[in-house]
Amino acid sequence: MKATISKRGFLQAVGAAVGVGAVYRSMQALGLVSTEVAHEVWADLPRGSGEGKSVAILGAGIAGMTAAYELSKAGYRCTILEAADRAGGRNLTARAGDVVGEVDGRQRVNFSEGDHLYANLGPARIPYHHGTILGYCKEFGVGLEVFTNDNRAALFHNRERFDGRPVSARRVITDIRGYIAELLAKAVDGTSLDSALTVEDKERLLQMLVQYGDLNADHLYKGTKRGGYRDGRLNAGLKAGELDDPLDFSDLLKSDFWEYKLHFDDFLDQNPTLLQPVGGMDTIAKAFEERVGSFVRYRSVVEEIRKSPKGVRIVYRSGLGGAVGTLDADFAICSIPAPVLKDIQNDFAPETKAAIESVAFAPAIKIAFQTRRRFWEEDHAIYGGISWTDQDITQIWYPPYGYHRDNGVIVGAYVWNKDIGLRFEGMSPEERLRVAIEEGERVHPGYAGEIEAGVSRAWGKVPFQKGAWPTGKEAPAALQRPDGAIYFAGDQASALPGWQEGAALAAHAAVAAINERVMGK
Amino acid sequence: MKATISKRGFLQAVGAAVGVGAVYRSMQALGLVSTEVAHEVWADLPRGSGEGKSVAILGAGIAGMTAAYELSKAGYRCTILEAADRAGGRNLTARAGDVVGEVDGRQRVNFSEGDHLYANLGPARIPYHHGTILGYCKEFGVGLEVFTNDNRAALFHNRERFDGRPVSARRVITDIRGYIAELLAKAVDGTSLDSALTVEDKERLLQMLVQYGDLNADHLYKGTKRGGYRDGRLNAGLKAGELDDPLDFSDLLKSDFWEYKLHFDDFLDQNPTLLQPVGGMDTIAKAFEERVGSFVRYRSVVEEIRKSPKGVRIVYRSGLGGAVGTLDADFAICSIPAPVLKDIQNDFAPETKAAIESVAFAPAIKIAFQTRRRFWEEDHAIYGGISWTDQDITQIWYPPYGYHRDNGVIVGAYVWNKDIGLRFEGMSPEERLRVAIEEGERVHPGYAGEIEAGVSRAWGKVPFQKGAWPTGKEAPAALQRPDGAIYFAGDQASALPGWQEGAALAAHAAVAAINERVMGK
Repeated sequence: MKATISKRGFLQAVGAAVGVGAVYRSMQALGLVSTEVAHEVWADLPRGSGEGKSVAILGAGIAGMTAAYELSKAGYRCTILEAADRAGGRNLTARAGDVVGEVDGRQRVNFSEGDHLYANLGPARIPYHHGTILGYCKEFGVGLEVFTNDNRAALFHNRERFDGRPVSARRVITDIRGYIAELLAKAVDGTSLDSALTVEDKERLLQMLVQYGDLNADHLYKGTKRGGYRDGRLNAGLKAGELDDPLDFSDLLKSDFWEYKLHFDDFLDQNPTLLQPVGGMDTIAKAFEERVGSFVRYRSVVEEIRKSPKGVRIVYRSGLGGAVGTLDADFAICSIPAPVLKDIQNDFAPETKAAIESVAFAPAIKIAFQTRRRFWEEDHAIYGGISWTDQDITQIWYPPYGYHRDNGVIVGAYVWNKDIGLRFEGMSPEERLRVAIEEGERVHPGYAGEIEAGVSRAWGKVPFQKGAWPTGKEAPAALQRPDGAIYFAGDQASALPGWQEGAALAAHAAVAAINERVMGK
Repeated sequence: MKATISKRGFLQAVGAAVGVGAVYRSMQALGLVSTEVAHEVWADLPRGSGEGKSVAILGAGIAGMTAAYELSKAGYRCTILEAADRAGGRNLTARAGDVVGEVDGRQRVNFSEGDHLYANLGPARIPYHHGTILGYCKEFGVGLEVFTNDNRAALFHNRERFDGRPVSARRVITDIRGYIAELLAKAVDGTSLDSALTVEDKERLLQMLVQYGDLNADHLYKGTKRGGYRDGRLNAGLKAGELDDPLDFSDLLKSDFWEYKLHFDDFLDQNPTLLQPVGGMDTIAKAFEERVGSFVRYRSVVEEIRKSPKGVRIVYRSGLGGAVGTLDADFAICSIPAPVLKDIQNDFAPETKAAIESVAFAPAIKIAFQTRRRFWEEDHAIYGGISWTDQDITQIWYPPYGYHRDNGVIVGAYVWNKDIGLRFEGMSPEERLRVAIEEGERVHPGYAGEIEAGVSRAWGKVPFQKGAWPTGKEAPAALQRPDGAIYFAGDQASALPGWQEGAALAAHAAVAAINERVMGK
């Protein structure tokens, strides 16, 4: 422990002297951010530094609660205004008896009771390098388990290829690599790459390609036992079987399998190891709520955000048609999603208004089904992971928890494409389920007969959210600096749109900036 | 559930009529083995079919206990002779206070108490397609969680390359793929592959390669954010950073990273999803022992295996210098590892003796360390997975369980190379730990200071085992058929050496063959 304590001690000393922003910069300079202290929570404000100061926090999602947690520890008086009757924002786990609402209706979650019968309808995974959120998990004692993206038993499905039959990820990945290795070996064996490679590297590259693609002695790809054996046998068993024929390369090229699906887990945010809280993603939201819930005024819909001589004045209404309230504070941290924020009366500067207007949110969709048995495990040896289809449902997720239980909850559609999202958004909840079942049936014949209950979430139609995440990759500059005493947070103020890490980091940045201002006074 | 029940019902009906071997063949014919009924336990012998028959089972490992479990359910009278004082065989989990023995000494496991402080010194993972073992896990209620092979935060280390500094799997994998894609694109952009590809496929292949390797518009690989950002930043955070420079291709080619390590998780047996029992691999052995422990005579060292008019006669000694006992039975199932079996007096046919002599076992080594903190998670965001080094320790495994706890147990060496294994085998336990710490220090500077306790297991020196697994890929034919009334089991009688699945499958085969013989009488 000693090495860490001294490093952390140093950073705490810097923090006490100059504030958390300086700590963050020190850590960056030391190359520590996200690696050396991957899950240390670094926003430790000096104790008492906020005494006598008040902060109005708009939104009790991950950003708002993170800000309240850090500020209140330093003595700031925090009030969180939350429009909904629950905390967590887009961090949402559906369980038996829950009611999930959209602007024009409500769905009751008809799952059975069971600690494995839930669906994370918002964020569902935490990349290993999201050290801020992981740090809070550690600090709050939120148990973690592995979330599985890459399951070679899962399926790739394209209606136009391979007679419309799903093929295993295992076959697609090994066969494509085999062909790539064969073609490159052919080129290297010839002379066309001689100018690009030394003789020595050429020899080593050939050796590598033979292993990379499992090529034969003639540098040809004729299938590999990495893909499994003939007749659907998946392992050698008592006597090793024969290699199966590889999939046709031209068909693979004509499929959409290689369009990001093939290397999905190579994207930094989808890289293994991915983690998830045991028991549902909302375990994190609940852990925050336990600590800052007393600061939250639920069903408090913000109607005006004003600059005031003191700092900020927030006008809000308590529930539908309820009383109007006013909250004055020295500062505000606003995590209200841009599509909602843009319609709230405000005193923002023109650049701020323009920035808010510029942020579009994705109309993402998730549909979850409870099934009467875990047919994916029982019939296909699929333990967690994702199947892909070229149909609108896009993906089927098998739960990476509750293995071998009697039943389970799968994600029957996860859509982020705008056109498809809007198509589902326009349907009634019943129609969404019907379509998702019909499409799922083409991936898993018999699917319809397995399903017992379903729920959908069209984020574009969720009150006080109006979307799943900002579609841009970077936040507008105006959302990363204060407008008067008003600071912005949420994933929309980070370069990690759609990730809780972005929400928490932006909250840290806002908290640090407020504290520097206070301490500088 | 209906679809399964009827399928299973059909198979049980076949089983009742003609025995489990027929069921297995029916399942093969139906293409069901290992896929459709991936985790159904299929060795359901007809009830009562073994009444009045006795079986001597030699060895209470996974094979012996599987055989006893299935036979006893069918009415066979089973006796298991186990040389050690525990069941499980190579299925071994080390915990605080355990004593693990080798031929010339004993080590006490000095770990602290804690449900996350254990090391699986034998098998540690279960591939998703090992349906027999997974079936028993389901039947016995053994909880499962994910075992992680592929962790992109884990390290590749070669003393001769990259200044001897470990580099992340993420960088190695993305950079090698980038270069491969670039080189192949160069060849395709030229004319050298024109004869191998249609114009249409050529165009699609180029599009694929751009995605596969994340090539730029000129089809060059200049690094990818899949590998992370400059200055050790692992995610975009508040503002996306700059791409880091890729590793030098020539250095990558000169390293040993691409020698099976690069595609380790593509091997069928190492494919995700891998599973492990919650709480340690011996949970499986204990679940079997709960069911068949009453049949086991512990500390019963077999000294003679004889053919008798009744069937078999086994002579054994109860413990060291203990009394000699005799066990007569209609049949025997022998799962004693070949290196031990070959020295036991027997009446085997010459081909059987030759087969047993021919099976060599690997002198594999595992070394486990308890550490004072989880430095891999705290300092490197490594959650489970494996780092590779060209040093003798070969691998460091980070525990895929107990995330974020205060301390943990890592595997500090996992060696299967014969020469290296024998080198470690020849050392004292203290010397093994010293070497493993010294080498680990080169992968993780500060390693030595983190370690609190260690234990090693040199399987070649374990009494009644004399090795970790058969080095051949297929079992000799003579071990897959009976010699008189003596049947063979264990992984050595399967084409899955080193896997519990092979042990259980071979046990099923022996059980099925005995039952067919009995029912045929």
